[in-house]
Amino acid sequence: MTKRLYNAKILTMVPGEDIFDGEIQIDGNRITYVGKSPAENAGTKFDEEIDCEGNVLLPGFKNAHTHSGMTAFRSLADDLNLQDWLNNEIFPREAKMTPEDVYWLSKLAYLEYLTSGITACGDMYLTPESIYDASVEFGMRCQMVSGLNKFGPTLEVLERRYNELNNKNGLVGFLMGVHAEYTCEKELLESVSELIHKYKAPLYTHMSETKTEHEECIKRYGMTPMALFDSLGLWDFGGGIYHGVWCEESDMDIMKKRGLRVVTNPASNAKLASGIAPIEAYLEKGIEVAIGTDGPSSNNCLDFFREMFLVTALAKIKENDPKAVDAMEVLKMACVNGAHAMELFDNDALAVGKLADIIMIDLYQPNMRPILNISKNIVYSGSKTNIKMTMIDGKVLYKNGQFNDTIEVDEIYNKCEEITKRLR
Amino acid sequence: MTKRLYNAKILTMVPGEDIFDGEIQIDGNRITYVGKSPAENAGTKFDEEIDCEGNVLLPGFKNAHTHSGMTAFRSLADDLNLQDWLNNEIFPREAKMTPEDVYWLSKLAYLEYLTSGITACGDMYLTPESIYDASVEFGMRCQMVSGLNKFGPTLEVLERRYNELNNKNGLVGFLMGVHAEYTCEKELLESVSELIHKYKAPLYTHMSETKTEHEECIKRYGMTPMALFDSLGLWDFGGGIYHGVWCEESDMDIMKKRGLRVVTNPASNAKLASGIAPIEAYLEKGIEVAIGTDGPSSNNCLDFFREMFLVTALAKIKENDPKAVDAMEVLKMACVNGAHAMELFDNDALAVGKLADIIMIDLYQPNMRPILNISKNIVYSGSKTNIKMTMIDGKVLYKNGQFNDTIEVDEIYNKCEEITKRLR
Repeated sequence: MTKRLYNAKILTMVPGEDIFDGEIQIDGNRITYVGKSPAENAGTKFDEEIDCEGNVLLPGFKNAHTHSGMTAFRSLADDLNLQDWLNNEIFPREAKMTPEDVYWLSKLAYLEYLTSGITACGDMYLTPESIYDASVEFGMRCQMVSGLNKFGPTLEVLERRYNELNNKNGLVGFLMGVHAEYTCEKELLESVSELIHKYKAPLYTHMSETKTEHEECIKRYGMTPMALFDSLGLWDFGGGIYHGVWCEESDMDIMKKRGLRVVTNPASNAKLASGIAPIEAYLEKGIEVAIGTDGPSSNNCLDFFREMFLVTALAKIKENDPKAVDAMEVLKMACVNGAHAMELFDNDALAVGKLADIIMIDLYQPNMRPILNISKNIVYSGSKTNIKMTMIDGKVLYKNGQFNDTIEVDEIYNKCEEITKRLR
Repeated sequence: MTKRLYNAKILTMVPGEDIFDGEIQIDGNRITYVGKSPAENAGTKFDEEIDCEGNVLLPGFKNAHTHSGMTAFRSLADDLNLQDWLNNEIFPREAKMTPEDVYWLSKLAYLEYLTSGITACGDMYLTPESIYDASVEFGMRCQMVSGLNKFGPTLEVLERRYNELNNKNGLVGFLMGVHAEYTCEKELLESVSELIHKYKAPLYTHMSETKTEHEECIKRYGMTPMALFDSLGLWDFGGGIYHGVWCEESDMDIMKKRGLRVVTNPASNAKLASGIAPIEAYLEKGIEVAIGTDGPSSNNCLDFFREMFLVTALAKIKENDPKAVDAMEVLKMACVNGAHAMELFDNDALAVGKLADIIMIDLYQPNMRPILNISKNIVYSGSKTNIKMTMIDGKVLYKNGQFNDTIEVDEIYNKCEEITKRLR
């Protein structure tokens, strides 16, 4: 199946490349040409040709940290602090969730990802086997991360999932991970360290999300969570952390040394009053920053435009400097760094050989006018109304406000309402 | 012209009224019935009947402080502090703007207001006569505010505009105002005070937006801007302030005593690193808080969903308390208080006799599912994609992503690109 997307403005996100007018050609799920029109291979016939009408193509947004299946709890228990919310509202309900529940609830999140131009998600949630099914059937690129902790599952299950769920389908993967320092005993962390050494695997985890959590680790171990994990060899093969709101400079030194990434979740951190992550400090240290929505119960929505604006707006407030973290830096976090923070390196730019995870931004909307600077327009003024098309793995799953016919939208809505009623 | 909006969930924003299933009837530009279906007058014929398909009707959002015509400068000069941005980038270009420029640039903003469910704007900008024409032709409810300062216009012009532009058309009004303390000599403020006493008129102004501005006034006069205006009798007939990021408790006492309102502009204040306004403190004092986008050059977009989320998210960060400023409070600011902060009292709720400024929220979008709490869904998860209809003064101006045929969208886009090129 070959495709041609022509009459477009193209923002490749390849370092040093400016936006230009041209076209993209695709064969199956890979990009075969990016450049001016007419292409060198003008005259070639394509199975499908899409006129982009002067709109912008860029690599899809990467939601590098989320808990998709938590759609069940949207608007259920807001305005609470993190520990009350988790212990009293979320954990008791999650205990009642079945793999099938997670399957449908994940699909609900995927619908929202499409409307927001998100083409891949880093998903730490229950029942990875049913998330695998949901992703493959839906067509969502999903890099799962183990959320192992002292309540489960076993190390054997983690190892089995790592072996079974990787390389089974090009859309889905499974990364080594633990939920957080505060939900794992030291012995468990040591066993995980052995496992990642066996597979030479990078590790991902929630870290230093709240001040309390960060300080309690220091009380417990005499060192920060970052330093503790380093001392246990958990960063020996890289990886990264989610949140990192309270990381100190010494933590950033470890991150730089180990090549770790940080995924910031600004809406969730604001809504739970966890704080503002030190984005400018990470960037100055040369640490790659990516962006995540976190789960739809703490955020509550899965809107990458809101996250992108928050990254820069909150940095400007935190640094008391309107020059902090400019628009192009934010776009790089959203399109490029987010892929890397999921250990994906084939969908971070529009270039020959890369995966065709592409979105189209509608410039014929009032919030995109006048057209003085397209990347600033996207980051400072963009909204989900500007997502004219979302393509994952070469397939158009969302276009002009409509989902692809292969997606059973009404069934997803109905199943999720039923599940939510049961869990309430 | 009579209309019936049926099969709806209705959030009237009348204090104490819960959301219910029902219908709204309209005659001309006024609401004639709000209640259960079938109405008491079942059997009446209507000129138009709109099936709301189970979606939500609520009063339109009120953008209580903006500079609509600044669309020309969107993405032109970002990442600068307020004074550099104003003095070096904005003022020199504004000096070249014609009334016709402002006419087209305002219409571009109005398009964006419609996509965001904004049914009225409080607009402080150049050339009120051409803004009047733009609003009336477009059908946008616009309450203009004088931006008088030491560079112009004269007091005579202000008085003439006050007399001529009020009560000329039900959609448009003109309020007394000055740009700010720091752009007005004391003698000018004294003359404005005489004028507002002549007309017993409330006054609106930018105030305490930046720390520098607030502190320089204290140096100059030995008192805060709020206290200075009070000492000059400028609050004798009420009114309000825009921004109020740095107001002190004593300022709030004056505001409470004088019945003043504050319009917060969270995106603009964040982007310019001006700070986070003390919303919780205003609410505790019993001061009505409204929301504005500020102009599209400092924000840069005119998206009320982004503003609503920022109001609550930034309050939670500022207070270090996830319970600060809940969703229903934010909706009240957006739909009700915003009207009052424009001195409008006929469009703040869905009730018999009120103006038909109504929006419809699309629940058949993934970000609105599941439906556990509609006001939380709107504030925490809502986006412009959920605006299914925007009605102003009884006329549907935007529906299902399309603007009304009476609106010349392409001409607005083209004129604004031309104007922007000339001003660049």
